Amino acid sequence: MDELRALWTARSVAVVGASTRPGTPGRRSVEFLRRYGYTGRVIPVHPSAAEIGGLPAYRSVTAAGGAELALILVPVPAVAGAVDDCAAAGVRVAIIGTSGFAETGPEGRAAQEDLVARARAAGMRLVGPNCIGAAAFHTGLVASFSPLFSADPDPAAPPPGGIGFASASGALGFGTVSLALQRGMGLFAAVTTGNEADVTTVEVLTALAGEPECGALLGYVESLTDGDALRRLAAAGPPTALLVAGRSAAGARAAASHTGVLATPDRVVDGALRQLGIVRVSDVDELLDVGDAFALCAGRPPQGRRVAIVTTSGGSGILAADAVAACGLTLAALAPSTVDALKEIVPAYGSVANPVDVTASVLADRTLVARTLSAVAADPGVDLLVVCFCVLTGEDVDAVVAALGEVGRTSGKPVLVARTGADGLAPGAAAALRTAGIPSYPTPARAVRAAAALLVPGTNSREFVVMEPAITTNSPQFVPDEGGERELKEWLGAAGIEVPRGRVVSSPTGAVEAVRSVGGRAVAKVVVPGLVHKAAVGGVVLGVTPETAADAYHRLSAIDGATGVLVEEQLSGGVELLVGVAPSPLGPVLTVGAGGTLTEVIDDAATRLLPVTEADLRSAVAETRVSRLLPDAAVDALVRLVLALPPVDGALDLNPVLVGADRAVVLDAALVRAG
Amino acid sequence: MDELRALWTARSVAVVGASTRPGTPGRRSVEFLRRYGYTGRVIPVHPSAAEIGGLPAYRSVTAAGGAELALILVPVPAVAGAVDDCAAAGVRVAIIGTSGFAETGPEGRAAQEDLVARARAAGMRLVGPNCIGAAAFHTGLVASFSPLFSADPDPAAPPPGGIGFASASGALGFGTVSLALQRGMGLFAAVTTGNEADVTTVEVLTALAGEPECGALLGYVESLTDGDALRRLAAAGPPTALLVAGRSAAGARAAASHTGVLATPDRVVDGALRQLGIVRVSDVDELLDVGDAFALCAGRPPQGRRVAIVTTSGGSGILAADAVAACGLTLAALAPSTVDALKEIVPAYGSVANPVDVTASVLADRTLVARTLSAVAADPGVDLLVVCFCVLTGEDVDAVVAALGEVGRTSGKPVLVARTGADGLAPGAAAALRTAGIPSYPTPARAVRAAAALLVPGTNSREFVVMEPAITTNSPQFVPDEGGERELKEWLGAAGIEVPRGRVVSSPTGAVEAVRSVGGRAVAKVVVPGLVHKAAVGGVVLGVTPETAADAYHRLSAIDGATGVLVEEQLSGGVELLVGVAPSPLGPVLTVGAGGTLTEVIDDAATRLLPVTEADLRSAVAETRVSRLLPDAAVDALVRLVLALPPVDGALDLNPVLVGADRAVVLDAALVRAG
Repeated sequence: MDELRALWTARSVAVVGASTRPGTPGRRSVEFLRRYGYTGRVIPVHPSAAEIGGLPAYRSVTAAGGAELALILVPVPAVAGAVDDCAAAGVRVAIIGTSGFAETGPEGRAAQEDLVARARAAGMRLVGPNCIGAAAFHTGLVASFSPLFSADPDPAAPPPGGIGFASASGALGFGTVSLALQRGMGLFAAVTTGNEADVTTVEVLTALAGEPECGALLGYVESLTDGDALRRLAAAGPPTALLVAGRSAAGARAAASHTGVLATPDRVVDGALRQLGIVRVSDVDELLDVGDAFALCAGRPPQGRRVAIVTTSGGSGILAADAVAACGLTLAALAPSTVDALKEIVPAYGSVANPVDVTASVLADRTLVARTLSAVAADPGVDLLVVCFCVLTGEDVDAVVAALGEVGRTSGKPVLVARTGADGLAPGAAAALRTAGIPSYPTPARAVRAAAALLVPGTNSREFVVMEPAITTNSPQFVPDEGGERELKEWLGAAGIEVPRGRVVSSPTGAVEAVRSVGGRAVAKVVVPGLVHKAAVGGVVLGVTPETAADAYHRLSAIDGATGVLVEEQLSGGVELLVGVAPSPLGPVLTVGAGGTLTEVIDDAATRLLPVTEADLRSAVAETRVSRLLPDAAVDALVRLVLALPPVDGALDLNPVLVGADRAVVLDAALVRAG
Repeated sequence: MDELRALWTARSVAVVGASTRPGTPGRRSVEFLRRYGYTGRVIPVHPSAAEIGGLPAYRSVTAAGGAELALILVPVPAVAGAVDDCAAAGVRVAIIGTSGFAETGPEGRAAQEDLVARARAAGMRLVGPNCIGAAAFHTGLVASFSPLFSADPDPAAPPPGGIGFASASGALGFGTVSLALQRGMGLFAAVTTGNEADVTTVEVLTALAGEPECGALLGYVESLTDGDALRRLAAAGPPTALLVAGRSAAGARAAASHTGVLATPDRVVDGALRQLGIVRVSDVDELLDVGDAFALCAGRPPQGRRVAIVTTSGGSGILAADAVAACGLTLAALAPSTVDALKEIVPAYGSVANPVDVTASVLADRTLVARTLSAVAADPGVDLLVVCFCVLTGEDVDAVVAALGEVGRTSGKPVLVARTGADGLAPGAAAALRTAGIPSYPTPARAVRAAAALLVPGTNSREFVVMEPAITTNSPQFVPDEGGERELKEWLGAAGIEVPRGRVVSSPTGAVEAVRSVGGRAVAKVVVPGLVHKAAVGGVVLGVTPETAADAYHRLSAIDGATGVLVEEQLSGGVELLVGVAPSPLGPVLTVGAGGTLTEVIDDAATRLLPVTEADLRSAVAETRVSRLLPDAAVDALVRLVLALPPVDGALDLNPVLVGADRAVVLDAALVRAG
């Protein structure tokens, strides 16, 4: 991954396709490399020109003596030659801005694969094609033709800061960068990856994670296809938030198994990011909101989920409290001593309970704001503060900023502000708050959502513990025949998983005998090789007694394709769950959730990448609504069952698993082999 | 409601508590009334001053000869006298800004009720107390002391426009107003209602709906307690969006009935607003986003849900498509002729399918943007357009604005823009788009969410059809004893609702006979007066046959408090639903959803205010996931059942109702009487 560092540290950059015509991408790129103070060597490559933009031009990167980074902007037919030139000249990373490859169809895809092969042969990495390049803000290394960098007044003057950004989309990526700069957010580098023929956004972010100056990562991702790469990104440490597009593209999947229906690509992404401690956001606004929280609250990780809300407006306080509940945070219960201190400050028509409503009148005395914030921040029951203002004007702003900065510094707790009022009322407020280390947001809900991101496991520290995997799907040990339910259950039973007693019978008398042997009350199911949904063909009879066993046998064995009848003890008195293992775009995943015949309607499931740790598994179970019905001992039994699962190759559907008291029994099982 | 018009049309305003000291609310209010061009009479009321702010002051409103509107800002002890003075002087609406009433506790609440009684006796309406007043932007009638109106440069210069705004919160309300003005949104009037001792936000909005200039309504609401008032607001017509705070305050409710658990106050609000065609938003940003869509797309209601996305960035297109799916809209399928037209414009590396990705290159030729938009807008399969840009600079902006304005005018279809880039890159873009009748938003998701609001039934027209109610809860006709399940079922049966055959027996032989009479397969349930959850005490036996009936009788009749055993035919083969009627803060509501023992876990229900029309009912059923399992005939049977329900007084819980094929049978029923 080290070679990707050239994207922000290269000491020489070639622009292959540099142009003599002003306003073209090939000319703008050369200008941008000079506009932002880049001190390395800039090499325009042009078939004939002697100089471009005041710099000596060369016929090839090789002729120029090589470069660490290259930006290729030549037309499609010339790209392969440019890649070869770069490879021969020892370029470490070539960015291909040219469009017209995989996004145009199979021919373009083949041409793109050819580019990758040429680069790989030389050990060179490719970014793009069909991207808008990269920009490193500390070094002024702008290897991009985005019009953002030609705007006047210059919007891209980078404030100091350490946010690394990568985007699959070029235009949306640099649009987002422009919004980040508008906020005054300090960026380390921004890289767009386009078609991702070779380098992905996840890989770029992982490389950025290796830079000590880079304290937080934001990404816009269009396809997540490599679970291991995602694990490496998470393990690399800095707080990371991703906007993953394409939620809707997933659509409905063929329902070969319940697990397949439940483990939608979107749910898999949700589960994987949760498991790995990466924040998933739902829009561009939120991506930047979270980035501000990461960057500005970096030295003050919250120690828990207890939020104190301080507000000058009752309405903002209620909206913030709603958001606290919606984001899974809790309202801090203030200590009696805190409440006593607040009683001396807050007027009777305010509130000394959380949300603390100090009312706008408190702004009239600047010492009161400071005293209120200190009292709340000093409360040991408070982990983080969300402070809400509305119309805030003139001198009030300075007092408020000073008080907020002070309380942030002295308390060591994150403080986030919601200011729901026009910029023009307090023109310098957001910048002054930023300088004081306080992120500010336009609404209480946005402030609380950003605060919640600070609490996603894994975002508080660069250290990320990868526990030993408990279940893997590395090597199939045994794959029973499809549809062989009893055989599958015996295989599960051999692994220490509880299954109902029973056997397959092939005669009415065998059925009667089998019902007796399991205690006189049984389930009878038809055995049809390859048939998964037995109930749909009337292939299941409940409550079979020795008296009704022969009749049940006759009915079931008359079903088309029947090769026998499975008689098993009938169990009841528990909750029906689903446990499944299935392939996914990110690799094999485990799904747990509500099971039974209404599985798809209840739609209550959580998914995790395999391998899964016991902690992952318990967090997935806790995420389901159905887990509320389970006593601790039942959850333990479910966890034991899942951890005992042998490796499988394909989709395994245990549904229902009857879970109650301290048992978890697999009532039905099906396996769809990979392939 | 006509008297509330004084808030924006009064020809004379008294400020009771006008002050000679600059900077105080009592002085600022007088200044604001002059600053914004109000041409009516302004009457400062002060105990001794002869003039305030250059205007003659009076000792009372009566002494001044009366006023239509009064703003009362005197300290708590003087408020009652001021109210009396206003009432005596013929004031139509008195706004009480003073804090220190119901929000401080029982004493304050009593004082507040006293104010209302004094006002009511004189036919005068009260706004507040504990509010920040009102502002009418067309007339300059600013009866408020919000610091918003003292800011310099003046942020409150109102552009022409017709959005009416009401807010329970004063500070958040005027903060929101400042954000609306920052966007350039045209406001008609803004009213804050504080404690709502008399006048509510819903009532203010209903009065604003009566103004022909007022074409859309936005509200921030903290408590909705009057379903009838909400119906009147909806019937008044203009598109309306509400931000309802206090979602989290609801918390868990005592679980007297399944319906009670499902019909949370928040779900009731959701259902009521959906039923009445009012848009519910989740944050201040979204409230204003929707307001812009209402106001700017007013003359061009979408005729369907089919969205065409046109984008210069693939990434924005995917995010917009995700939002289309999330908001329940659909991606339009473009006609072959449209696709052909686009093929001549869009480069090969773009996309001519929806989302149409024209790529940034199309911006280079300004005629191409116009041709693309015209082709898409002319497609009869397209109901509305969402157009996405990112970094958009310089001259591109003018061409884009011209093309968008033209297509909006000529197509008669709503066009909404997402521009994901810094303001500074295209400083005049948002304002120019607004002038052209095109709302613009910072992200694709926000544009699509605002577009979806245009499709909420009821927001497309001022005409709102109130159908005849089918179920009411006006007068209880018959209230069976609580716990008398069979009696309740017979009452339902008499109303034409299907219930299982059965009867209560009091002996083992009676039980055997009853099982035979219902066909030889029965459910037996213990009868214990007042006991709702029979299964929890082992009081239900399934699959009872004549052979096992006596045994079942003995087991059940041994249960504490048993007065008999109910034997009913055992039905199966359908989906278990819940139908419930329960009281709510907005009045009695109907709840339908997934039923059975897992009701609370499945948590799949929709709620509507009673009375409910058949259309309401069908929309509620369609909102549930479980309805996907029901064939049309089964939905019809469910609808017949609900429409046949007799009026009840209290909470009625039919759970489960077994629905399948073309039948809906009430398997269990419970009634908790009101009071």
